[in-house]
Amino acid sequence: MLYWDQNATTPCAPEVVEAMRRYWNEEYGNPSSSHIMGRRAATAIKKAREQVGNLVNCLPSEIIFTSGATESNNLLFLGILLTPRSERNQIVVSAIEHKSVLEPARLLNEHGFEVIELPVSRAGVTDLKAARNLITEKTLLVSVQAANNELGTLQPIEKLADIAHENGAYFHTDAAQILGKLPFDVQFVNCDFASFSAHKMYGPKGIGALFVHGGARHWPWTCPFRGGGQETGLRPGTSNVPAIVGFGEACSISQKYIQANYQNALFQLEKDLLACLKITFPERVVHSLDVPKLPGVISIAFPNIPADLLIDNLQVLAVGKGAACSNRTLTISHVLAQIGCDSELAKSTIRISLGRNSNQEDINEAVEMLRYSFYEIRSSLTGG
Amino acid sequence: MLYWDQNATTPCAPEVVEAMRRYWNEEYGNPSSSHIMGRRAATAIKKAREQVGNLVNCLPSEIIFTSGATESNNLLFLGILLTPRSERNQIVVSAIEHKSVLEPARLLNEHGFEVIELPVSRAGVTDLKAARNLITEKTLLVSVQAANNELGTLQPIEKLADIAHENGAYFHTDAAQILGKLPFDVQFVNCDFASFSAHKMYGPKGIGALFVHGGARHWPWTCPFRGGGQETGLRPGTSNVPAIVGFGEACSISQKYIQANYQNALFQLEKDLLACLKITFPERVVHSLDVPKLPGVISIAFPNIPADLLIDNLQVLAVGKGAACSNRTLTISHVLAQIGCDSELAKSTIRISLGRNSNQEDINEAVEMLRYSFYEIRSSLTGG
Repeated sequence: MLYWDQNATTPCAPEVVEAMRRYWNEEYGNPSSSHIMGRRAATAIKKAREQVGNLVNCLPSEIIFTSGATESNNLLFLGILLTPRSERNQIVVSAIEHKSVLEPARLLNEHGFEVIELPVSRAGVTDLKAARNLITEKTLLVSVQAANNELGTLQPIEKLADIAHENGAYFHTDAAQILGKLPFDVQFVNCDFASFSAHKMYGPKGIGALFVHGGARHWPWTCPFRGGGQETGLRPGTSNVPAIVGFGEACSISQKYIQANYQNALFQLEKDLLACLKITFPERVVHSLDVPKLPGVISIAFPNIPADLLIDNLQVLAVGKGAACSNRTLTISHVLAQIGCDSELAKSTIRISLGRNSNQEDINEAVEMLRYSFYEIRSSLTGG
Repeated sequence: MLYWDQNATTPCAPEVVEAMRRYWNEEYGNPSSSHIMGRRAATAIKKAREQVGNLVNCLPSEIIFTSGATESNNLLFLGILLTPRSERNQIVVSAIEHKSVLEPARLLNEHGFEVIELPVSRAGVTDLKAARNLITEKTLLVSVQAANNELGTLQPIEKLADIAHENGAYFHTDAAQILGKLPFDVQFVNCDFASFSAHKMYGPKGIGALFVHGGARHWPWTCPFRGGGQETGLRPGTSNVPAIVGFGEACSISQKYIQANYQNALFQLEKDLLACLKITFPERVVHSLDVPKLPGVISIAFPNIPADLLIDNLQVLAVGKGAACSNRTLTISHVLAQIGCDSELAKSTIRISLGRNSNQEDINEAVEMLRYSFYEIRSSLTGG
């Protein structure tokens, strides 16, 4: 099985599985317990919080563990929603945010906030000129992702953070796709909040974090989640110790993979793959060419080859279609729509996301599989 | 190490660890992906949903996976909070609910709901007479736990559900402590919502569920969490496949432990332990005697022996103090306060919660440890 859907989720790194191992039924204490089992669990969480903080260059106390980036995004937006209103009631997001930002923003809109979606270029990069016009002194929060999940395009978040701050607004970035792939530094970006998911970077599913500048004690909103006071009151519920330990380990080992030499190798694989696909399928259309991107992420359309049929036909090659996080519906990806891709082309678009396990031999093998699938699908569609 | 703090959290059963094993880095697909890896992950979740549904006697579609009971409780209360108001604006909870019910209820109170806390008897059982008086046609939701986390007392939830329904209100029960320990049947209780946590019943941390009568499509409130549409839109975020599989397995193996013979064995252990403690420490005060309780849960005070010192001194015996879920503060447990326990006695109260691994030899060993700790603490307090 060639797994080229690493933007949807990744396997746990072996080191992550090993790190979690003894927390299932040896060191299983509840870190809120005051006995020795509890204290040892609390120590394990302390270490993991440092590991996550180290990767993104913040204090451990600025990392609030959640169940993943979707929850982190919801925590932020619900916090705003439940806080008494001020004159600032504008929320600015990019039009190609993940649904876990767009949909909470729409919830705020239903409750009286004005939500502005920033347009993007045809390559899938947020329009800074529009941002400068639309972010005003009425803006409370600007939320733009670090990297797009479908296109891999990097967004100009440092500049957007500046524009937000010049207008007195907070800046949040959903960094789920960039973490562990490229360097991501909350000080450099100068963001107030950032969302992370472990399972996108070879950590376990079900765990992530919200970076809060200054830590939970400086949380400027109402706490929407209430309970036993864990995570300094911001995210109650028994701490998910094994997953937190796994997330910490995933962050530690990521230090190696965010180095330039690793990224260059992945970019080279991507280049080789695109060259092979050009020969195999000259009519292919590659989205988001020639803009800064996550290495190894390709959004590509094969005209007249429906992505659904292609994915079904590719029994041992796993690639994505549209946003993998939305349930299996035939609606066109909002990201492709925003970059001006017509619905026919969108239906023929797949997402290839290479990762740490991808190599040169995979490419030859996969191109063969694709070639065979193209042939089979064309034959079936023409009744041949 | 004798772990007698099973109400705080439990180790994963070996079968649970084994069931999760291959989902870390073999079957690691995202169930929202349409390729074969995604479909296999979706199949695993389907099975787990059936296993959970089987244990509580509901349809698989009525199980909404969350990160645990705290989140399930918050999901329900936030849903109510964000739904346009009606004439019914009263929320009724018992005064000894877990903080993950009491605190969300207080959030509703801050936003204009009337919150009524039902008193409990000195044994820690919700007062039905008060419930009949206080639950009215103004009541929107009644939320009373199935079993108390500190005392182990079973609450009269079937009767409370009837009273709620007679008044046209919904009934919710936080069933985190009862699941997998005693039979719990949503049809028999006739509840509209119920919250569960896997880590209280030998499943993994970080996963739980909300039972929703009729399933997510019959959710009567606004959906507070927004994103990629997972769990029929009610709980978005990439499904935590390994933990869901583990939760399902924990439910399957629990079928054995909810049998009467297992409960009787645990009650016998509890009885033997209490008999030993009576001899060792005649002044001990046992809370919640002679009312229906979870087997193996003892709330007991040793006058003039501060629980903090006792727990620190008991190096190899882990017992709880107050609610383990609240952070290590010296505030008196609200549960003990509600049953009329004075603050001096509350400070000397520990919670013993036996479990599947407890046996007769443990009891003799633990009583010896306690005896030694009592001696040491008394000596240190009297400066001896």
